[in-house]
Parts: sequence; C-alpha cells; structure tokens
Amino acid sequence: MKYLLRLSYLGTAYAGFQVQKNANTVQARLSYAAKTVFNTDCTVTGCSRTDSGVHALEYYATLAEKDGSVIAEEKIPRALCAYLPDDISVSEAKLVDGGFSVRRAVSGKEYMYLLWTGKSRNPFYSDRAYYYPHTADTDKMNEAAAHFIGKHDFAAFMASGSEITDTVRTVSDCRVVSDGDFLKIFVSADGFLYNMVRIIVGTLLGVSEGKIQPSGIGDIILSRKRENAGRTAPPEGLYLNRVFLK
Amino acid sequence: MKYLLRLSYLGTAYAGFQVQKNANTVQARLSYAAKTVFNTDCTVTGCSRTDSGVHALEYYATLAEKDGSVIAEEKIPRALCAYLPDDISVSEAKLVDGGFSVRRAVSGKEYMYLLWTGKSRNPFYSDRAYYYPHTADTDKMNEAAAHFIGKHDFAAFMASGSEITDTVRTVSDCRVVSDGDFLKIFVSADGFLYNMVRIIVGTLLGVSEGKIQPSGIGDIILSRKRENAGRTAPPEGLYLNRVFLK
Repeated sequence: MKYLLRLSYLGTAYAGFQVQKNANTVQARLSYAAKTVFNTDCTVTGCSRTDSGVHALEYYATLAEKDGSVIAEEKIPRALCAYLPDDISVSEAKLVDGGFSVRRAVSGKEYMYLLWTGKSRNPFYSDRAYYYPHTADTDKMNEAAAHFIGKHDFAAFMASGSEITDTVRTVSDCRVVSDGDFLKIFVSADGFLYNMVRIIVGTLLGVSEGKIQPSGIGDIILSRKRENAGRTAPPEGLYLNRVFLK
Repeated sequence: MKYLLRLSYLGTAYAGFQVQKNANTVQARLSYAAKTVFNTDCTVTGCSRTDSGVHALEYYATLAEKDGSVIAEEKIPRALCAYLPDDISVSEAKLVDGGFSVRRAVSGKEYMYLLWTGKSRNPFYSDRAYYYPHTADTDKMNEAAAHFIGKHDFAAFMASGSEITDTVRTVSDCRVVSDGDFLKIFVSADGFLYNMVRIIVGTLLGVSEGKIQPSGIGDIILSRKRENAGRTAPPEGLYLNRVFLK
C-alpha cells in the first residue's frame, strides 16, 4: 500500500531531506520508522529536496510498503512519530493509489525566509533565523521583490555548478513582511532552482543596503549571470512553508 | 566596577542558572565570558535561580570585576556574546554602584508557561513547550486561575522537601491565554516557591481535565498540603518572561 504523509521538521540536525551516505537525513529517519512500523522495507519518497539546515513547516512524502499490509490512516502519524526523533513530526497519512507520485503532484511551493533584525542576537533562533542586526528598508525590498514575480529565466539566481538546463520558473508571489524584530520574506513559485530563494534573499538584502537598485532586478534576471545577483543568504533562515498539491 | 546585565537564554542545554559542580550552567558560561572580556576574575550574580531546562526571555545579572577596569557599557553586550554560546545572549549592560544587589532589586517576576495543544507534536517546540494534545477548557482554567491572585500561603504549591519556611507570596496575575494551538499561562508574583509555577500549571490542567473544581482552589491553598494540588508540569514549557526591578 502507498500512503501520502504530511510532515514537518526542524532541519538543524539534518543534511537535508534526501538520503546521502554517512549523513543524517530526514528520509533515512522516516525510512527507519516506516520499516519498524510496517515490519517490512518501505520506500519513502519526498516532494522536494531540501538543503542541509533548512526547515520544513509543511512537507509531503509517500511511504510505499510491499507486503500489502494496511494500517488505519489515523493511526499512522502517531505510530511513525514513536520511532522518529523529536525534530520530525508526521501529522497526517492518507491512502493513495500505487501510481501516485508526490513529485508530480506538486504544483508549487512557498518558502519563507526568516531574519532576526534585533540589535542583540536571539538565543531562541540561533539555528532558526538569519541574524541580521540592521535596519531593513522593507519598502525598497518590496519594490525590488515585485520584479521577481512572473515567468522568467532565473539562471542568475541558481547556484553555480548546477546541472539543470531549463532555468525558467514562474514566481507567483515575492514579498517582505516586517513582524516586530523579525523580517519574513515569502517566495512562491511552480518550482525552484538550487539556492534560488537564498540568492533572491541575498539580492533583496543588497537592495536594502543600497548596493543594488530595485529597478535593476530586471536586468540582473535578463543577464542570466549568477555574479550579477546578490550573495547567498545562509540556510538556517529558510523554511519550506507550504506545498501546493494538485 | 559593577555592571547590571540584561540577558536571555534557551535553557535546554543548562542545569539552570546557578553554578553547580559538573554541570553546564548559564552562570558558569557568563563567568567564563566575563573573565575573558575583562581579563580578570569576575563575580556574576543572578536575579533568580532557574531550574534545569527552564528558559529566560528576560533575566538580569550583575557582573563585578575587581581591577577597576572600565569598558564602555554599549560595548559589553557584543563583547560578552562573542565568548558565550549561541543559546545565551546579553542585550544590555549598565554601570551600577558597588553596593547594588540584583536580588534585592527584584520586586517581582512574571513567568509564562507554554503548552502545545496540537494533535501532532510540534518539531519546532520539542524542548520549548509542553506537548499536551488535548482540548483545554480555558474558561474553567481562568475561573480557577483567579483564585490564585492575592496574598496567600502557597505551601501546597511548593515541591516537597523545600527548606523554605516563609511560604506566603503575593500573586498579582494568573491567567490562561489561547494562541492558536498554543496555550500560554502567565503567573506574576513578588516571589516564587520551588516549582510553584509548574504546580499551579499542573493544577490548572487538573481543572481542565475535570479532576479539580475551580471553586476548590481556595481550599487547596488553605490546606497547605502539596498532595492536594495537581501534578508538576514539566520544565520545558517554563519561561521567565519578565523581571520587575525596583
């Protein structure tokens, strides 16, 4: 049987979702819990890769087990949580067809990038927000953010060395929201290139710092050159916030 | 010179504020940072003991160094933070008289107790909130909470084995606030007995669960017997929220 799982995790301890040799990954932890609960090898497939240290407030994965054993959907979250570390939680499970692909089911995702702009560092967010002790110019940042919205070739906003060749993505939302001493940057798109959100955030910070003009974003996109965009913001502020399923 | 420091810390990694043999404590970390920054032995004194695993959103301590060396107040927070772990932050420093006692300066404190009442556990709050997956009856809890307000003998709300004999305290505020799937319980008083907030919280949960009647709180207080109050809620939900200085 195949189940669609809804989960969330604190990414600090993990080298991302995807299994890697000699690394602690969310997928490896989920596979272990699934094998224990279903008492057979299970295939766990995630809806998206996430980088090392990146968090997920919402994430979907499928769990396929081969023996055809059925566990009531409502019992699965608690059963899996019992064998998962405290920083991973499964909140829902739903039976799906054997042919269901969670990757193909994703129509879009929303990331949130969290910054702590307080003068002193926040001991409650050391691995959960980027410590950026500066006054951000959110008006200028939002003016720049609007230029990302639409269907564009985002090659300039992809980590160099990526092998992906189709770099066109459609960004449906990009905005900066101030919340006390926190700053939240939301980016929604049908898909993301490697480090795309973190480079967009670094570019928006460049705008706030006066190094990049809001009106210059269009030219940076058109250039398709990574070196024209801003720096890559660190991973600890990045959250996969919502996953849109078809 | 003597400085009053304002700080905050995530208590998860610490056996409380107060120095103990063979234990990681906030005071020990602060003393180390102070000695490094001032290049001499310093005496660090906290405004309050906190238990193992308990957090502080606001905390005050004094730092006294013997050599009379002066560092500009505004430079001290960053200098200390450079030698402190990420889960402790100093946000302010102020020169005070040599005779200033931070313990005597405290006129009251406010604690917040945080509960996560979502159906599934929250991976972002595993050591930061008490996971209580039940529907809380906040009306009944607030009805009970009101009975704690006033000057009472709180002996029934003190961990057994405490050596304190004067168990009269004045509670100025006690209330339960629902915030989405979080529940926050605030308790302010001129002083607190050992485990007092955690026993008040356990008692309020007993009220929500129908084991204790709101109108019975007065009799529990009058009995002065620990066994008549509710259970002791776990430490991870407890935050020293505000410290009132004279």
